[in-house]
Order: sequence, then C-alpha cells, then structure tokens
Amino acid sequence: MRDTLSPDTRAHLIRTAQALADAARPETLRHFRTGIASDDKGPGPGGRFDPVTEADRAAERAMRAVLARERPQDGILGEEYGTLDGTSGLTWVLDPIDGTRGYISGTPTWGVLVAVSDAEGPLYGIIDQPYIGERFFGGLGEASVTGPLGTARLRTAPARPLAGATILTTFPEIGTEEEHRAFRRVADQARLVRYGMDCYGYALLAAGQVDLVIEAGLQPYDVQAPIAVVTAAGGIATGWDGRPAHGGGRLLAAANAEIHAAAMELLAGS
Amino acid sequence: MRDTLSPDTRAHLIRTAQALADAARPETLRHFRTGIASDDKGPGPGGRFDPVTEADRAAERAMRAVLARERPQDGILGEEYGTLDGTSGLTWVLDPIDGTRGYISGTPTWGVLVAVSDAEGPLYGIIDQPYIGERFFGGLGEASVTGPLGTARLRTAPARPLAGATILTTFPEIGTEEEHRAFRRVADQARLVRYGMDCYGYALLAAGQVDLVIEAGLQPYDVQAPIAVVTAAGGIATGWDGRPAHGGGRLLAAANAEIHAAAMELLAGS
Repeated sequence: MRDTLSPDTRAHLIRTAQALADAARPETLRHFRTGIASDDKGPGPGGRFDPVTEADRAAERAMRAVLARERPQDGILGEEYGTLDGTSGLTWVLDPIDGTRGYISGTPTWGVLVAVSDAEGPLYGIIDQPYIGERFFGGLGEASVTGPLGTARLRTAPARPLAGATILTTFPEIGTEEEHRAFRRVADQARLVRYGMDCYGYALLAAGQVDLVIEAGLQPYDVQAPIAVVTAAGGIATGWDGRPAHGGGRLLAAANAEIHAAAMELLAGS
Repeated sequence: MRDTLSPDTRAHLIRTAQALADAARPETLRHFRTGIASDDKGPGPGGRFDPVTEADRAAERAMRAVLARERPQDGILGEEYGTLDGTSGLTWVLDPIDGTRGYISGTPTWGVLVAVSDAEGPLYGIIDQPYIGERFFGGLGEASVTGPLGTARLRTAPARPLAGATILTTFPEIGTEEEHRAFRRVADQARLVRYGMDCYGYALLAAGQVDLVIEAGLQPYDVQAPIAVVTAAGGIATGWDGRPAHGGGRLLAAANAEIHAAAMELLAGS
C-alpha cells in the first residue's frame, strides 16, 4: 500500500496529520489543570464531571471532523469512538489524550497521538504535547520536533553499552509480575531508569535523549504514533519478542539495533 | 527578621529573585538536549565535557553576578559554589539545576530553584522551568504561576481522603530501604502515585493538581524554594516528623493540614 502512494497523497497525509494535532490541542487544553479531579462532582445535572474524559472525547470529535472533510475514504481507529471502516487501505489511529494519569496530575507528559497506517503498520506519526507547545513527528521522509527552542531534526542516540544507557518506562505503575521481573533484568543493567514520562518518553527517545523505552499492556492507539516517530528518527520499535508491535501489547523502543538486541535478550530471560 | 522588612525591601527581594531566575534561564537552556550525555567525551583538551555541570555552574555564576550588584549585603548558599556570608540576616539559596537526572534525560521536570531566607526559613521562593517557560513563585504576599497559559493564582487542593489522593515522588529512585518502606505505607493508601517529576512535583502541588509530594535525602538548596512556594499556595511542607524542613533531609509537602496529618502518621509507622 505505502509504496503506491503518490507524492501528492503523501503530502496530503502529512498536512492532514498536522491538522489533526492542531485541532486536538485547544480541546485538550480546555480542561487541563482546571483543578477538578476526576472523582469530584462537577456542574452537570446531578452527575459527575470528568475533565479528562471530556477533553478526550472533544479532541477526538475535533479530529474526526477534520478526517470527514479531508480523508473520508480512510478508516479510523480512535480510543474514544471506536472503529470506522474505510475504502482506501489507510487507517487513522487516534489517541486524543495518551497518559490520562499524567493529565489529571497536571504533568506535561501526556500527548495527542496521531498515526496513519496501512496493513504493515504506521506510515507517519505525531506525538504532540499541547501544554509545552511541542510536536514530534516522523515518517514519509520527515523526522522533526518543533517546540519552545524552534525546529530540529530528530535523531536517535548512537549505540552504547547498556551500562551507560538511560531507560524510560511507566513501570512500576504498569505490567504483570512477570513483565515487571523481565523489565528489572534490563533496568538493573542500565545507568539510569526514569519513570512517569507517558508518551513523552518516546519523543525523548526519538530526540536522542534516552536509549530505551520499555512498556507493556498497550493498545494499538498507544503505540502506532510512537513507532512511526521513533523509526523515522533512526530507532527500532518492536514487541519484546522482536515482532511487529503495531497491534499493541509489550513495546521495546530502542535508539539503535545494538541496544535493542541487548535489551531483547534480557527481556526474554536468557 | 522577616517582620522588620520594609515594603521597599520586600519589593526589592521579589524583583531580585525574579531577576535571578531570568539570569539562570538561558544558561540552563544552552546545554539542554544538546545530545551529549554526561559520560561522553567532549571538545575540551583531552577532558570530559559534562553538559549538566557546565550549565549548573554557568547558571549559578549568572545568579551570583546579579546578587553582587543588587544584594551585596546578603549571604549566599549555592549548590555549586558554596557559602558566602552576609551581614543582613538574609541568605539566598540557589540550586541552578535541581533534577540533574531529568536534565540529562531531556525531561522538562528539572528546575531553577531560588529562595531568600532568614533564620526561620524561606520568605520567598521560585521554581522555574526554563524549557516550558513556566515559573511558580510564592511568599511575601504572592503565590502565582506564569507560563504557556498565562498567569494564574496558585492554590493547593482542598482536603480529601488519602484514598482519593495523588502523590508525586522520586521514589523508587531515592531513599534508604527504611524510607522506602515508610513511603510505601502512604503510597499503598493513595489513589495514584506518579514518579520522576523532580522539583516540578512541588509546583504541581502548589497549583492544586496533586495532594502530596514525599521525598528524602534532600539538601537545603533542594527544599527552600519548594517550601516557600507550597506554603504561599496554602499548603504545608515539613519534615516527615512535622518539624521545620528547611535544613533538608526528608520532606513531606501537602496540600492541606488534613492530608499532611494523615501522611505523617503513616510515615511514622503508626
């Protein structure tokens, strides 16, 4: 599929992806840090008001409105409103707020995830952090970040031993006991392990700041944009077993083939 | 000391504190995300180039230059260049880059910490996040944040049960085994625990986004600005034993007296 796309179509896909992230930004920011925790009662008629759910849904609706106008022939897989079949062989994969626990805690680590995929996986992806005003995007020949310091090319870090590496992860918050043990086998060899970065961790991997991101329990809409951005920046993102990961599950995202192989071996328990 | 300060002096302290944070910003950003990890060799004559140490020192020098001009009568306690005695009874407490592990990982969670203190503790403090362009400050009648969404008043969250609370911490990265066990007694009761926010966690507490920040192993320059900002926003920041914490050590920062008491009881093991 991806090899038959015309230059015009590729440019249109990029423009549309950027328009989706633009449309989601104000909707996600409207309720960010409003100080109403998701278990407090809100102004609704006797009901609860959940700011992250509100923002999630409003942002996905805004993105779907752009797609209805720009790419009606494509399918959609969205976190909030499910699947819409298309006829083009392309599917837009949308997570309007990835990192909802970060969102309700006020941390600037959540993001809007946008990807466009064919049957082989994502062609192009965006990780957008609306509060910082920072966007990481890659695929279809691009790999860049725009943010507070301007625009820069994304390039993952060169190979170095695990003993000198930095790992980002959501563990210990996520994962089964077995997954946690496997993660620890890698983490115990690394120079530094940092937590709590949500999808922003993949952005930092693409930007060459860290060497590995290791996660588990993921959905397709959690992984497709990160896979596209990390791959476009020169990294590798697969399942813990080295297979394609765009269906979700356990993700091993690495700056280069060497450290990917080293981490995969330890995750497998050998 | 603090009760005898004239309105002019108070205004001058505030202006000076803001000027210090302004002076530190470009120095901290010069080496941020430059892609040179702190264990790589750099351009020096055969030596190693450590970007975070460079940025730390340059930022502290820039701040000390402002103080030499504006407040030569005050003392200084800085992370990088130690203690300078003053004659006024006031001391500036400076941590040019708090959260160096965040800094070298590229996360926007480190900050420039500025406080001005007398013998009783900090009068005024600033937590500045240069990459986001966000500044949290409080004391001497102020408690505000300026950042990407404009300026807003800081106000900690109202009381709620620990079962509904969000905790931020650097654990499991820090602390002794005993401290870790004490922390877990609180964490196990909370709704949500998030990691890796460095000094940005105190800013989120002051902004009403989270209920508790619990840390250990801290230096005076790590705690004084956070104590000032959290207290000015309506919160409480003490040692785990409820005593003044401006000397460092174990810090329990809470949105309100109720959750402070609940956490302190669990930390004590009762």
